[in-house]
Amino acid sequence: MFSRIFFLLVVIGMPLSIIGSVFHWTPLLMFVIYCLTIIALASYMGRATESLAIVTGPRIGGLLNATFGNAVELIISIFALKAGLIEVVLASLTGSVLGNLLLVAGLSFFIGGLKYKRQSFNVYDARHNAGLLTFAVIVAFVIPEVFSQTMNDERTLVLSVGISIILISLYLAALLFKLVTHRGVYQRKDETIDEHENPEWSGKLATTILFISTLAVAYVSENLVHTFEIVAERLGWSELFIGVIIVAIVGNAAEHASAVIMAYKNKMDVAVEIAVGSTLQIAMFVAPILVIISLMFAEKMPLVFTLPELIAMATAVLLTIVISNDGDTNWFEGATLLAAYIIMGIGFYLL
Amino acid sequence: MFSRIFFLLVVIGMPLSIIGSVFHWTPLLMFVIYCLTIIALASYMGRATESLAIVTGPRIGGLLNATFGNAVELIISIFALKAGLIEVVLASLTGSVLGNLLLVAGLSFFIGGLKYKRQSFNVYDARHNAGLLTFAVIVAFVIPEVFSQTMNDERTLVLSVGISIILISLYLAALLFKLVTHRGVYQRKDETIDEHENPEWSGKLATTILFISTLAVAYVSENLVHTFEIVAERLGWSELFIGVIIVAIVGNAAEHASAVIMAYKNKMDVAVEIAVGSTLQIAMFVAPILVIISLMFAEKMPLVFTLPELIAMATAVLLTIVISNDGDTNWFEGATLLAAYIIMGIGFYLL
Amino acid sequence: MFSRIFFLLVVIGMPLSIIGSVFHWTPLLMFVIYCLTIIALASYMGRATESLAIVTGPRIGGLLNATFGNAVELIISIFALKAGLIEVVLASLTGSVLGNLLLVAGLSFFIGGLKYKRQSFNVYDARHNAGLLTFAVIVAFVIPEVFSQTMNDERTLVLSVGISIILISLYLAALLFKLVTHRGVYQRKDETIDEHENPEWSGKLATTILFISTLAVAYVSENLVHTFEIVAERLGWSELFIGVIIVAIVGNAAEHASAVIMAYKNKMDVAVEIAVGSTLQIAMFVAPILVIISLMFAEKMPLVFTLPELIAMATAVLLTIVISNDGDTNWFEGATLLAAYIIMGIGFYLL
Repeated sequence: MFSRIFFLLVVIGMPLSIIGSVFHWTPLLMFVIYCLTIIALASYMGRATESLAIVTGPRIGGLLNATFGNAVELIISIFALKAGLIEVVLASLTGSVLGNLLLVAGLSFFIGGLKYKRQSFNVYDARHNAGLLTFAVIVAFVIPEVFSQTMNDERTLVLSVGISIILISLYLAALLFKLVTHRGVYQRKDETIDEHENPEWSGKLATTILFISTLAVAYVSENLVHTFEIVAERLGWSELFIGVIIVAIVGNAAEHASAVIMAYKNKMDVAVEIAVGSTLQIAMFVAPILVIISLMFAEKMPLVFTLPELIAMATAVLLTIVISNDGDTNWFEGATLLAAYIIMGIGFYLL
Repeated sequence: MFSRIFFLLVVIGMPLSIIGSVFHWTPLLMFVIYCLTIIALASYMGRATESLAIVTGPRIGGLLNATFGNAVELIISIFALKAGLIEVVLASLTGSVLGNLLLVAGLSFFIGGLKYKRQSFNVYDARHNAGLLTFAVIVAFVIPEVFSQTMNDERTLVLSVGISIILISLYLAALLFKLVTHRGVYQRKDETIDEHENPEWSGKLATTILFISTLAVAYVSENLVHTFEIVAERLGWSELFIGVIIVAIVGNAAEHASAVIMAYKNKMDVAVEIAVGSTLQIAMFVAPILVIISLMFAEKMPLVFTLPELIAMATAVLLTIVISNDGDTNWFEGATLLAAYIIMGIGFYLL
Repeated sequence: MFSRIFFLLVVIGMPLSIIGSVFHWTPLLMFVIYCLTIIALASYMGRATESLAIVTGPRIGGLLNATFGNAVELIISIFALKAGLIEVVLASLTGSVLGNLLLVAGLSFFIGGLKYKRQSFNVYDARHNAGLLTFAVIVAFVIPEVFSQTMNDERTLVLSVGISIILISLYLAALLFKLVTHRGVYQRKDETIDEHENPEWSGKLATTILFISTLAVAYVSENLVHTFEIVAERLGWSELFIGVIIVAIVGNAAEHASAVIMAYKNKMDVAVEIAVGSTLQIAMFVAPILVIISLMFAEKMPLVFTLPELIAMATAVLLTIVISNDGDTNWFEGATLLAAYIIMGIGFYLL
């Protein structure tokens, strides 16, 4: 049933997206068309990723999800940097961190928890991720914020680039740790059982669908972003709210869809890997890469967020760590994360 | 022995409280009379609640404690709001959070730990509470503090009301979770054993005593509060110190008494439920209700604490979470919480 | 092989240190001589402490390490206070906290992790230490920072002295807890197995070597400190960077050496006791003692760090707690702590 609706949405939405953008239809209409098309495309990405996750195992599957979700964001952000929209890029990085930690994980825990009384995921992964989240957000993002207060712009940029190099190095070290030196060391006994399930699509077909739908999402996303300014004006939203909330929801639609599907199938290892893995990729890879890429443009981007952005991210990390620390989830933990997201949403809306 | 002293204190203290307030005895004398009477009354509340806790089980018993402790505070705060004393209300909310987390839990762990080498409580409850404490204090109290710095008063109030509605909703959801959807899911195996104990009073008698002593505590408390200003002047205390430290100690005397009694009887589940449950009720129910009630008065109360108040609450929450994380307590953990309370007490005294 | 190099370094380095300081050789040369001599002496301290640790058990051995490492620092700091160098003392306290938590623990986890896939230490000790770290840094250091913003200097000093007395009292209570009331209560089953190992030196010889090498380290350290100003000038380093990073690395060389040796021998209990125990001794004993001693000098030292110092310490504590919470270590956890240290190092260098 669901898959038919999404099929129709893609078959109708993609042509309308292209025609509408060529013929300059009214932005509010296009905004709705783009959003629905992306959500439908995201469902294909989710199903393709799910198939690949079954074929390749939960960890690689989770990485695939996170990678394909954030490729879109990286491309959009590079265009935004080129246009000198540094504040929008920092806001959308903040929004991705908040969206993944609170909205994606929150929805996964909540919807999975409506079906299952208690769900569990690998507690070693939870602790590994907790260490990295603390490192990336509480140390690497907070230090330049505080230290730059008494620094000139040049030194702030040197600090930002130094921290960016360390973030990327540790991200690569984390991959080395997970995939090479400690592969399977911290695995749960029952983790292999799930893999006897039959995937919906073969590895080859899934890869093809993932590739095509990623391209389509990228195309539609870029058009969508250009409607934001006018939509914001007409609806009375601030640009910060657009960056932090709207870009994050639409930009991470793929993660939302597949994480919630995984949670609903009681595969919490994959759901958490998508939500937290995506956050870590944003904070430890996409953000520092953008700092370094910005050196090539006229306006350089330091790794210095606004205080509301930083406090929102830091408190979201603390809440996530405290809640996911025991590797056990239920609907109420999901509701708590969603409530935190709504509070921050209201805050950024009123700012 | 103890119960005789408390009986005498009530029998002598109640009439003196009424006579003294009618004939306007000197405030310093009345201050001492009121305090002793409340402490004695609180012992009756504690014993009645203890009886009810045996009859109804540790969780409902804990909720009863927290409710009866904070009913007094809610009534006093509403009168204070009506009189426009917004700073005093925020200070007494801060004091209740600090008093419950550091003083009540600290005393319980310390005194219980002098008798028992190691005491333990339900680790699932500890983690559930840790999530809610982080949500309420680190997210819901910190966000308006930081975001309101660049907002006008009107928007700050809209943010405060929005956050208040979310806090109350999540508090109700937490009750639904604990009492309905996940009742007993996270219970310890040995939790039912204690309930074969004989209660001191029957359920009916305990309820009657609880009801009457609550009314008496409310009457004396309100009189006590009116002596504060003059006592503060004569003893050279700041109003903030009165609000944060004195109101909290007297206002939470009931919790102090019964939590310590429970800890001394090695019922740490109930002791922790009283201390942390009361904190959560203050932060997630009393505080937001007061924000909403204040809309009816001339001076509206935003959910914006002073920076010392907020930092004291946030660090108290972090310390409590780190210390109670393992569900294991001893005298030294109690001493650590008490030491933190003394540090904050000195800080607010000198402020 | 290693022991021969260190033997030569001491036999050559000590005379050169004395001759060079008498004949005023160029500071940059002396800086190198002093550093190498201290590192060699530290290896003797490490080996002597290791022998004593085998004789006296892991806990007393760890305390011995921490004591001998920080005796040097306490002496240097008292001379610095006498000279009115309050900022340098606070910076070197900060540096010791960061150095022990991030550099010493990081190196231990990393180098131990290169040899062993997973290493573990007593999880009860980890939690006990987590509580004390939170108390000392997040509560006792943060409160005077925030509260002193609206206080005059006199009240700030009263607050600092009050907090110092509480810190020292709780430190003594922690020793009482560990060594008397709860000795062995939280011990692991396998903790006694290691103690059948043969020590390199007898208890008497080890004590003698420890005593002499401590005196020698103290002598060389004091000379080293006097070269800092000129070295800083010639190399273009800030005084804050010298205080936070260089003093910490050289001043804690003994801890570095013996913690890493212990980690490499898979005695993580001792390695962690050295790193975290030393941090706690700095924060709960050395820092407050220095506040109280400073009352005798012309310039009193309040317990108020600069904001970058405080934020660096607080985030280092959070990261350490999140990472060491499970009592399980590996090379990647070490790399994460080292990466955090490098970020803070860059920050203090550019400040």
